[in-house]
Amino acid sequence: MPIRLGENNYGKQRVRILLVARHADRHDIKELTLGIRLEGDFESAHTKGDNRKVLPTDTMKNTVYALAKQHAIESPEQFCLRLAEHFLSRNPQVSRVRVEAAQTLWSRLSVEGKPHPHTFTSSTSENHTVALAATREEKTLRAGIDGLVVLKTTDSAFENFPKDEFTTLKEDRDRILATAIRAAWLYRDNPADCDSTWDGVRQTLLESFAGHDSQSLQHTLYAMGGAVLKEFAGIREIHLSLPNKHYNLVDLSPFHFDNAKEIFLPTDEPHGLIEATLRND
Amino acid sequence: MPIRLGENNYGKQRVRILLVARHADRHDIKELTLGIRLEGDFESAHTKGDNRKVLPTDTMKNTVYALAKQHAIESPEQFCLRLAEHFLSRNPQVSRVRVEAAQTLWSRLSVEGKPHPHTFTSSTSENHTVALAATREEKTLRAGIDGLVVLKTTDSAFENFPKDEFTTLKEDRDRILATAIRAAWLYRDNPADCDSTWDGVRQTLLESFAGHDSQSLQHTLYAMGGAVLKEFAGIREIHLSLPNKHYNLVDLSPFHFDNAKEIFLPTDEPHGLIEATLRND
Amino acid sequence: MPIRLGENNYGKQRVRILLVARHADRHDIKELTLGIRLEGDFESAHTKGDNRKVLPTDTMKNTVYALAKQHAIESPEQFCLRLAEHFLSRNPQVSRVRVEAAQTLWSRLSVEGKPHPHTFTSSTSENHTVALAATREEKTLRAGIDGLVVLKTTDSAFENFPKDEFTTLKEDRDRILATAIRAAWLYRDNPADCDSTWDGVRQTLLESFAGHDSQSLQHTLYAMGGAVLKEFAGIREIHLSLPNKHYNLVDLSPFHFDNAKEIFLPTDEPHGLIEATLRND
Amino acid sequence: MPIRLGENNYGKQRVRILLVARHADRHDIKELTLGIRLEGDFESAHTKGDNRKVLPTDTMKNTVYALAKQHAIESPEQFCLRLAEHFLSRNPQVSRVRVEAAQTLWSRLSVEGKPHPHTFTSSTSENHTVALAATREEKTLRAGIDGLVVLKTTDSAFENFPKDEFTTLKEDRDRILATAIRAAWLYRDNPADCDSTWDGVRQTLLESFAGHDSQSLQHTLYAMGGAVLKEFAGIREIHLSLPNKHYNLVDLSPFHFDNAKEIFLPTDEPHGLIEATLRND
Repeated sequence: MPIRLGENNYGKQRVRILLVARHADRHDIKELTLGIRLEGDFESAHTKGDNRKVLPTDTMKNTVYALAKQHAIESPEQFCLRLAEHFLSRNPQVSRVRVEAAQTLWSRLSVEGKPHPHTFTSSTSENHTVALAATREEKTLRAGIDGLVVLKTTDSAFENFPKDEFTTLKEDRDRILATAIRAAWLYRDNPADCDSTWDGVRQTLLESFAGHDSQSLQHTLYAMGGAVLKEFAGIREIHLSLPNKHYNLVDLSPFHFDNAKEIFLPTDEPHGLIEATLRND
Repeated sequence: MPIRLGENNYGKQRVRILLVARHADRHDIKELTLGIRLEGDFESAHTKGDNRKVLPTDTMKNTVYALAKQHAIESPEQFCLRLAEHFLSRNPQVSRVRVEAAQTLWSRLSVEGKPHPHTFTSSTSENHTVALAATREEKTLRAGIDGLVVLKTTDSAFENFPKDEFTTLKEDRDRILATAIRAAWLYRDNPADCDSTWDGVRQTLLESFAGHDSQSLQHTLYAMGGAVLKEFAGIREIHLSLPNKHYNLVDLSPFHFDNAKEIFLPTDEPHGLIEATLRND
Repeated sequence: MPIRLGENNYGKQRVRILLVARHADRHDIKELTLGIRLEGDFESAHTKGDNRKVLPTDTMKNTVYALAKQHAIESPEQFCLRLAEHFLSRNPQVSRVRVEAAQTLWSRLSVEGKPHPHTFTSSTSENHTVALAATREEKTLRAGIDGLVVLKTTDSAFENFPKDEFTTLKEDRDRILATAIRAAWLYRDNPADCDSTWDGVRQTLLESFAGHDSQSLQHTLYAMGGAVLKEFAGIREIHLSLPNKHYNLVDLSPFHFDNAKEIFLPTDEPHGLIEATLRND
Repeated sequence: MPIRLGENNYGKQRVRILLVARHADRHDIKELTLGIRLEGDFESAHTKGDNRKVLPTDTMKNTVYALAKQHAIESPEQFCLRLAEHFLSRNPQVSRVRVEAAQTLWSRLSVEGKPHPHTFTSSTSENHTVALAATREEKTLRAGIDGLVVLKTTDSAFENFPKDEFTTLKEDRDRILATAIRAAWLYRDNPADCDSTWDGVRQTLLESFAGHDSQSLQHTLYAMGGAVLKEFAGIREIHLSLPNKHYNLVDLSPFHFDNAKEIFLPTDEPHGLIEATLRND
């Protein structure tokens, strides 16, 4: 038959879990949304409807809850590794497992300046992400940030770009620069403390964005990624995907007002998008 | 003709603006999304296609930018009042103006423990809202919060409820309670400092949620609203709309594990919804 | 105590159900998303944490499935009525029930020109909605449409509007008019055939939008609502909420091209919004 | 310096355009949302802030409108090809262009059984997509469908799957099967008539879904993709990404009702996901 099954995978997405650790003096919580994908010897399922090797996606979901109970969740990175190992060790037909996680960021509430033992708040726009690809031979573990929105009102220019017959953009020595940071970095080895590394990378990204004298978002992306690679020796490479969230100066001249970079129109579309991977060889 | 035009309004929605105040030592920013609606003598527009009284919604949008330039934006409350006054004073055909605003919450970035002069971060899930209805005779000004997500892992029960033939819910002495607070409160007069009142109401809502020994979300809603009314004499009434974001205990018995309130399934649907207005007479 | 509980309600939102009717020659399906709210004597729940009158929202959800099993779902209107009646007749503490429904519109697939017995397709952007408010004395039943997107490329103008110092909009004799129709109409009595009335109202709204020589969206709204009231004697009033989805002419003059109303920029924000209720007295 | 710039690209996303072709007897419309990405020699922009090779993303946006004016849009496929060719021929620093398009599907309204000359309706959940990657040497053109929701109430089973200690799923000989089809197929050459091929592939996907005696969603995916490859010789490969949208049987036993596969709970999360590429060698 000339029709050939190529790359294929299957699994369960949007598996949600909240873990409560009930200590004597306080409760801790972790909330994750997980996606699991298996690759392997599944040709007969496709071509013959033979399910004897098809671990149900419902079982994948159950496994999340069971392993969380057996071992708790130290970090999203460690839990993804545990899940991948479980599926690889139990299922010879599986050659590769991908596990993705997004951790909802809950903060402990402060009441009268003191941390509350069991109340938490969350703003859902930012996530701690993990993307793991694992075979029996090797593991590729990436941690990341999604939805970290940042804006600077100065120290950003875009000049000396090429012009053609369709150019209308003006050179700009002093513009607003805003983005929603999506970053993912590859660890050399399993890091000892994923959470403190994550906090450190996040702060480095923010500070390098703030402190950079930007000639373009490409220029700032490179500074941000470079700062992370310089500071964190355990990170081999970092990928940054940065939308250029345009804040356009409003033309007030019809009303006989100057606009001394005071009044801007925030826009969602169209938007620029700058993506690059930086490596520390 | 027996067909009669009843209640009607028109206006512009999703008008977005960012204001930058460029001080010598730092920049401040405010970002708002506005909605404006006019009511009044617009029958001939509907019935005859006569637009002589129809202030274009495009002009409403322009007015937002022009007034922001002329007067800056001290607070979203004050800016809504200014917009309403503008439309009422210029347009005799308008009898009532409604202005709604949602302020995007930007925080100044800290770099090495010090506030950065011109860099800000934002998580978009929580907004400072305003809803104003104004006629030439009276103004009703409400401020509010939208999307403030909060969760407590204990001090919440739901027991002694009525049972019928369709009841399957079990009595629960110790459950997770989680909601996304939507609140709107009515000021007696224009408050002197809207922003500090807003911060105070927010903290009161959070602390009363945390500290309450909850018998139901209704019970906690009443405690939260009551705490605000007791603390803020300038607030006449508060409306709370609280989804009951269910975190269901996962049944681990098929795997021969206990679940000592450790492993929960977060769900978005279905969800409970509890709404009430409390008044301080 | 000076704090008084005002208007309040509670219930369950986003209760989803699919019904399959398995006939010998074909299957029929109905999919609904329901919201249920109860009002009544719930003060002690708020003020004292006394749940003895609080029918759990979980039981409301169960009731949806149980009543669908017992009576099937002839139409979303009829099912909302049945639910309201159930809660009113069983719960003396309840004074008013509101039930809202959105029916997902599934179409039977055609295979080689013939209706398939058990396969359906759906585009989720348009819904058949119902909003019922019921007390023991009276019922207010509204049916509606949500998300019906429509666009005309001519027969639409907006001229002769008032100008002020903030006006920049140009008079336009021939513009694109586009909206996403949200309509809700009030039935005098329970209609005999809700589904065929709904189809008829939908077609009347579309045809009156298409055929109208529009001087404004207000003008077209009135024509659309009036056409429905004239054609359907069983409808007492109709509410229309019509966003003005702007398609702006792109300025091609910098590239030395004319734009003879050929190239437009679709925008989501800002947008106009026109709302009115029409009554047939 | 040990830090090396790896893969990188930049461009403009969410560029929206509506084209109106004004014929004597009728108007035709096409609405697209486009994304454009350039790859090439952009290292100095990243490392030195040198923008002399950085064609502004604003110019990319302008180019969309200008080329649409100059050449109209015969099909989204042809327009993506034209855009890629433009950027490659004008910008020696660019080595590869990717253009993605999603066409909003507008249908001409029928009024009294006749096609209306200038009014259209749209349901936004389904799109005609295009993904093009082009270098100066070769072009890879994929067309696709996104968001085509389909459900069958029978002829679907899932049995004989492996069980482990975390399995709770029951064997099911007769279940609901539902998915939202996302497909993308690779053309051998530029097809003569993209639109009629697209319509044909869509109908083939629907009919093969409906007619298949499904042992799993993998099994049905393979049947669907295989049917397309058999019927359309100009298609070299097809990728299908099919979420398994679970409709779970509601347990009515607590209410002493049977559920003879009548009452189901539609769920969005968690969901299965099955992906595969099929090739016609």
